[in-house]
Amino acid sequence: MIKPMLRAFLFLFSLSVMLSSSLSSSALLAADRPNFVVIFCDDLGWGDLACYGHPTIATPHLDRMASEGTRMTQFYVAANVCTPSRAGLLTGRYPVRNGMYGKRRVLFPDSVGGLQDSEWTIAEVLRESGYRTGMVGKWHLGHLPQYLPTEHGFDSYYGIPYSNDMDKVPGKKGRAVFADPDYRDFNVPLLAGTAGNVQQIERPTNQNTITRRYTEKAVEYIQQNQNEPFFLYLAHSLPHVPLFRDEAFENHSLAGLYGDVIEEIDWSVGQILEQLRKSKLDSNTLVIFTSDNGPWLTFGDQGGSAGPLRNGKGTTFEGGHRVPGLIWMPGTVPAGRVHHGLASTLDLLPTFASMAGASLPEDVTLDGYDLRETLTGDAPSPRDRFFYYRDDRLMAARLGRYKAHFKTQDSYTKDSRIVNDHDPPLLYDLLIDIGEKRNIADARPEVLSKLAEAVQSHRDGMVVAPSQCDRKP
Amino acid sequence: MIKPMLRAFLFLFSLSVMLSSSLSSSALLAADRPNFVVIFCDDLGWGDLACYGHPTIATPHLDRMASEGTRMTQFYVAANVCTPSRAGLLTGRYPVRNGMYGKRRVLFPDSVGGLQDSEWTIAEVLRESGYRTGMVGKWHLGHLPQYLPTEHGFDSYYGIPYSNDMDKVPGKKGRAVFADPDYRDFNVPLLAGTAGNVQQIERPTNQNTITRRYTEKAVEYIQQNQNEPFFLYLAHSLPHVPLFRDEAFENHSLAGLYGDVIEEIDWSVGQILEQLRKSKLDSNTLVIFTSDNGPWLTFGDQGGSAGPLRNGKGTTFEGGHRVPGLIWMPGTVPAGRVHHGLASTLDLLPTFASMAGASLPEDVTLDGYDLRETLTGDAPSPRDRFFYYRDDRLMAARLGRYKAHFKTQDSYTKDSRIVNDHDPPLLYDLLIDIGEKRNIADARPEVLSKLAEAVQSHRDGMVVAPSQCDRKP
Repeated sequence: MIKPMLRAFLFLFSLSVMLSSSLSSSALLAADRPNFVVIFCDDLGWGDLACYGHPTIATPHLDRMASEGTRMTQFYVAANVCTPSRAGLLTGRYPVRNGMYGKRRVLFPDSVGGLQDSEWTIAEVLRESGYRTGMVGKWHLGHLPQYLPTEHGFDSYYGIPYSNDMDKVPGKKGRAVFADPDYRDFNVPLLAGTAGNVQQIERPTNQNTITRRYTEKAVEYIQQNQNEPFFLYLAHSLPHVPLFRDEAFENHSLAGLYGDVIEEIDWSVGQILEQLRKSKLDSNTLVIFTSDNGPWLTFGDQGGSAGPLRNGKGTTFEGGHRVPGLIWMPGTVPAGRVHHGLASTLDLLPTFASMAGASLPEDVTLDGYDLRETLTGDAPSPRDRFFYYRDDRLMAARLGRYKAHFKTQDSYTKDSRIVNDHDPPLLYDLLIDIGEKRNIADARPEVLSKLAEAVQSHRDGMVVAPSQCDRKP
Repeated sequence: MIKPMLRAFLFLFSLSVMLSSSLSSSALLAADRPNFVVIFCDDLGWGDLACYGHPTIATPHLDRMASEGTRMTQFYVAANVCTPSRAGLLTGRYPVRNGMYGKRRVLFPDSVGGLQDSEWTIAEVLRESGYRTGMVGKWHLGHLPQYLPTEHGFDSYYGIPYSNDMDKVPGKKGRAVFADPDYRDFNVPLLAGTAGNVQQIERPTNQNTITRRYTEKAVEYIQQNQNEPFFLYLAHSLPHVPLFRDEAFENHSLAGLYGDVIEEIDWSVGQILEQLRKSKLDSNTLVIFTSDNGPWLTFGDQGGSAGPLRNGKGTTFEGGHRVPGLIWMPGTVPAGRVHHGLASTLDLLPTFASMAGASLPEDVTLDGYDLRETLTGDAPSPRDRFFYYRDDRLMAARLGRYKAHFKTQDSYTKDSRIVNDHDPPLLYDLLIDIGEKRNIADARPEVLSKLAEAVQSHRDGMVVAPSQCDRKP
């Protein structure tokens, strides 16, 4: 597929795809084409779910999802902060390729940038192939009209355009505003609509009920689209601070307000899987549960846990980039499997395209791998490497079990401006040294050489786009 | 029951118990009395199993045990090092009560002390009640003849008398000896026999095959005792350094030598549960899997992980005292439950006695709680407190969700001799602040008062016995 696609041809193209499907016995029939649901949390850490070892947060629905599906332990997000991570998931490209990065790190309400029309999103790839596409939740890839989800392949949208802590009401300062949060202190708009007709329906968004309302919209979406193949992207605004939950979840958790929020999301996952079962779509729907980046550790009781991994959100340590990754499709994705292969949100676009029989975009360079045979069978993961960026700087690289840090930098602390250059790089064996504590660079020069080759090859294929997050009006 | 029990009365007493059981319809019939299997690891950390969140060690049998049973997340060992922890498990008493503590911390091959005859062990309590009792594995409660397992209620014994790193061969120094371990560098004896007839059968013990051989002995024990109620105490010597595993487990794990060792123990658990199923004892046998203390962190790649908990072995932080606790008895212990109630190895003696219908000793003060209704039903845990000792010093106390540190001290590092006194104590909310990072003492004086009351009450009931670990010849 080539962009720009003339929008007028869209209907014709969809028709031809459906026609060819019905004519060719080898093609995937519409009825056989799986649905896709991506449940994406905000700032949920690797260690925040019971099935990933949290000692006090109860997540029975996610634990069940893990036991009925596959739990990935080496699942990476494209970036360690919000905007670039979301761009990476939806485009299958490192965010440096599409400009969704910057010194500001993410988009803000005063930003003028956003995801460019030249990019292909999962929604566009699947819609071109005949899928219905819906989005519920936080977007954060540009809030100006030309950047909204409905301009990027989603038939419908319901959610907030950026982070839930933005548009802070003047006069409310510092972190005190997060201690006992009031949604009226964050003047975040709630948008809803279809292409060309997205309206602000509420402001400030009542965030107390936002997880419940997202869930209701997602369940409704499944009910309404149960006869067509669909892609549903549910991007929760939480557990990003400020933390909110429905009154039904007040003091629900042993683990305080943060635990309440996670347990409401767990309930939400239970509702969605239950609707899939009710609609008899459970055996034909691939559900992915993950997060946009690691926990915001400096928020203490209001931040999550990276479990045994080092550091968290904003950094290129594992705690920033490695997150829960649950894969569920009963009968297709093996049940009760703990998978140690490398995988990334970057891989969702090519994997979904492969499972849907959809064409991949030809005019962009993809960084994702097709994990179809890995997630549904015994094939080892084709992903053997991962590159860790902070804005447009390549900070670290993983090849197989080894990770080299060329630069390290803290985030959200008083030391955040200090960039530590490492030459030789710090080298960790991530399979044995799970907390990145024991530098083995001196002992393993041959590993450093291979990592240097991998980085060179990556750089050779990289064209960095201008930053959208830093773009001036 | 009162000690000293004249041994000659033992047969008569057992007979009378069986007689009363057969006569009283309300008493437990022999056939109904559950078997007990305790699988106790050495230095296995809270975070070392997949079901507790380890990202690379594969433990499918333990994960299955967790999914068929109950996984405790607040399960405490009596002490943070070997000898006192084992004494606490077997006697249900804090080790300060029975002398199994000291400045040396544990017993060594040159020690002359051991568990006193005035103590009641689980084995004695159950044997008095008609149980067969067998021990396989590491003892470490006194290696002189009068202290061996067969002098403390076990019908039979097969194992090593103390830690697998003791009796180091002269000339082998420092930690290099652990890097690529050779069992011939550790002149540890292997003992086997029955009361009055325990022999050394091998020296040095071939530790490469020790986990496999312990497993074979345990499986054989179950086969041989399947028609009588029995208590089997399987105390693995591993993953205490030096690390060994059978050749079948060489490079079995992604996580290196340490992972291999855990995966062999996981296999071993699978063998034991499978034998219980084959013998049709699975619905009538309570199996507990746990560890003697947290991971020996200073051993790096050869030490385990406490997951998100702070510090490890030798300290009174959670990483030293809180360990995996899996409870399994299909049909009786709820399946797939993650339990957040407090529990301890101290509670096993009263819990087993309750389930077996055995009498509790009357001439010793027990620190354990009867968890029968908690483990098999919905009753909240009766344990609301735990006291953390380092030798005979009370370092910290937990009451409900809160933990106060009166003293903190590192272990096995250059700072290990520094005792930090805290007045006011450090105060942590363990349910929210799982890594003991945020001291809330200033904000919660009323919690400190309640903890002080709990400590005073504990001290009022405490009679400290002279140290056996420091005893001079």
